[in-house]
Amino acid sequence: MKNFEFRNPTKIIFGKGTEKEVGKECARYAKKVLLHYGAGSVIRSGLLDKVKKSLEEAQVEYVELGGVKPNPRISLVREAIELCKKEEVGFILAVGGGSVIDSAKAAAMGIKYDGDVWDLYAKKAEPVGAVGVGVVLTIPAAGSESSNSSVLSNEEEGLKRSCDSDDIYPKFSILNPEITYTMPRYQIACGCVDIMAHIMERYFTQTPNNGVSDRMAEALLKNMIHFAPKALAEPENYDYRAEIMWNGTLAHNNLINCGRQADWASHPIEHELSAEYDMAHGGGLAIIYPAFMKYVYRQRLPQFIRFATEVWGVEYDRDDAEATAYEGIVRLEAFFRSLGLPTRLEDAGIEADDAKLHFLAKRCDRNELGKVGHFVELETEDVEAIYHLAKKEG
Amino acid sequence: MKNFEFRNPTKIIFGKGTEKEVGKECARYAKKVLLHYGAGSVIRSGLLDKVKKSLEEAQVEYVELGGVKPNPRISLVREAIELCKKEEVGFILAVGGGSVIDSAKAAAMGIKYDGDVWDLYAKKAEPVGAVGVGVVLTIPAAGSESSNSSVLSNEEEGLKRSCDSDDIYPKFSILNPEITYTMPRYQIACGCVDIMAHIMERYFTQTPNNGVSDRMAEALLKNMIHFAPKALAEPENYDYRAEIMWNGTLAHNNLINCGRQADWASHPIEHELSAEYDMAHGGGLAIIYPAFMKYVYRQRLPQFIRFATEVWGVEYDRDDAEATAYEGIVRLEAFFRSLGLPTRLEDAGIEADDAKLHFLAKRCDRNELGKVGHFVELETEDVEAIYHLAKKEG
Repeated sequence: MKNFEFRNPTKIIFGKGTEKEVGKECARYAKKVLLHYGAGSVIRSGLLDKVKKSLEEAQVEYVELGGVKPNPRISLVREAIELCKKEEVGFILAVGGGSVIDSAKAAAMGIKYDGDVWDLYAKKAEPVGAVGVGVVLTIPAAGSESSNSSVLSNEEEGLKRSCDSDDIYPKFSILNPEITYTMPRYQIACGCVDIMAHIMERYFTQTPNNGVSDRMAEALLKNMIHFAPKALAEPENYDYRAEIMWNGTLAHNNLINCGRQADWASHPIEHELSAEYDMAHGGGLAIIYPAFMKYVYRQRLPQFIRFATEVWGVEYDRDDAEATAYEGIVRLEAFFRSLGLPTRLEDAGIEADDAKLHFLAKRCDRNELGKVGHFVELETEDVEAIYHLAKKEG
Repeated sequence: MKNFEFRNPTKIIFGKGTEKEVGKECARYAKKVLLHYGAGSVIRSGLLDKVKKSLEEAQVEYVELGGVKPNPRISLVREAIELCKKEEVGFILAVGGGSVIDSAKAAAMGIKYDGDVWDLYAKKAEPVGAVGVGVVLTIPAAGSESSNSSVLSNEEEGLKRSCDSDDIYPKFSILNPEITYTMPRYQIACGCVDIMAHIMERYFTQTPNNGVSDRMAEALLKNMIHFAPKALAEPENYDYRAEIMWNGTLAHNNLINCGRQADWASHPIEHELSAEYDMAHGGGLAIIYPAFMKYVYRQRLPQFIRFATEVWGVEYDRDDAEATAYEGIVRLEAFFRSLGLPTRLEDAGIEADDAKLHFLAKRCDRNELGKVGHFVELETEDVEAIYHLAKKEG
């Protein structure tokens, strides 16, 4: 086990009707907030009105900025920063999913930073603090409601990059599973894959002797495998949606990577897809993860045997350990398909030629070692090979 | 799943050499601290000197109060409160295990409370805040290093009572598994039982539809079953001790009771034993838990079948579901014995006659419902029957 520090200060307020608490919670931090949201769904569902009413009852003033798109854009973040400065707003309330929260976190850091906020994502500068962020979550997927990270797209440069800072853990996050009832089926499925990916990014590690985190990650994966199909079959079953929502938060609140070096290969490999084709991140992960696993599993057999036997209940074949490991990957891929998601680029309607895949592999974001991922340290040619495995059946 | 709020603000600093951070951490909160500890072991091991050196390097002044005993006493807490007031100390650093931390938490609340601190434990008054508490943990067991609770003994009244308040989550807890190498074998075993008991108090619930917490509790129990015997066999194996230490914190930091009503029957039933006979709490739990389970399992078969099959790998017997459930209890009891602990009062040298057991059952602390426990709501005669089951073999 590696040395670690863990502190997650986000207050989770979970359950039916909890959105009514939002005004009271905001009032602890500011007299005036920026109300940040995405498209019309929070308006149509009546959620935004409920939030405004709660703010008004708590005598919290607000200015509004909607229009956050999936794969949130730096341009709108710059607008949010200007607005907050002009209106002297000291707190940002994100009402939405990961994109809205990440946009809010970016603005929260940008307010405190003198240069252009993209510098923090391009790793040209370190964050220098942030105003507080609060969350009313509408989509269980990104885990941003209790994380210290934010992912942003720069539409001019065609880049999607992340920024981590302990300053951007939300002060509070309100999670009411009822709010997720109206999510489209495809979005629920994408969210489930994103949640499972957040667990797997941490599960696959080279760090030995890390039983607590291994077993907790397995518990969270098994819970998703149990409840994701049920939530899709009965979208208005409160308990199923509650399982997905709470599981999604725990997948990404940094608890299960305590004491280990997480991987983070598949996320940057996928980010190139969603930056290039503006596809749903979870949809891209359903394509990339099986391909990534097929590419690396022979180099890390013990971890993949454990994944197959513990998470998927595969019987260990004493005559063919490699087949045991591979069966876990087959089951994961079949599971993603059973959720209604494509697991190949061509199924998602993406026709990328060799030159394009080479370009994406080259552009893919590197970690501090100059590699993609830690579990297996990937070079450009490895990432390119993974894209090729993801291309089509066979 | 029930509505819940979860926020655990304790900063965990985990790993080799981390005790050197203590001065720097204390300096964030106060210029002068009370250094609170127990018996001579922290002096003999050299830990106290290391802590003092770190405080001095960080220019943090300190006053000292040692002498905390297992099952910490209200009398010493009163002394600590007087000393802090006299010396104008604004932060308490606990160097020790659960008893020292609980004593520190009691003093931290007592400083802010005008009446006698026992009022907070006797539920005659609510806590009104607390000064900050920091921890250097020496014993993985009580989980107090990241909990909002404190248990105290009133030696005059022969009572052992608990007090919960979010004000007493420690600001930071330093967990270095190396510090635990010198723990006596019996104390390691008692600690492992206490950790498992903290998980089981939350695991056994009547709340339906709580898959995330169920599976995480099972993960933590399985991890203890895997590593406790290894840690006893090789007390200076860093990785084994790290598993126990981190597992112990997660068992009691309130994460795994999110969304459910925890039980808390066995703890108060045991507290009567350790209050009366001044025995180790974990030792008492090894006696009480199997007896409690044998008394209630027929009323809660589904939960005990799941415990047997998922936690202990018992095969489900389609011809005898009750036997499947019972086998889980048998395995738990055998496991406690394999750690070298007594599982009957008589094995622990306690000869309690019927009148004494009746007296203890009557004195046993009730919850807000006037009962002992929530999983099965126990009356005095139930508690008495559990003591009788715990008495001797057969």
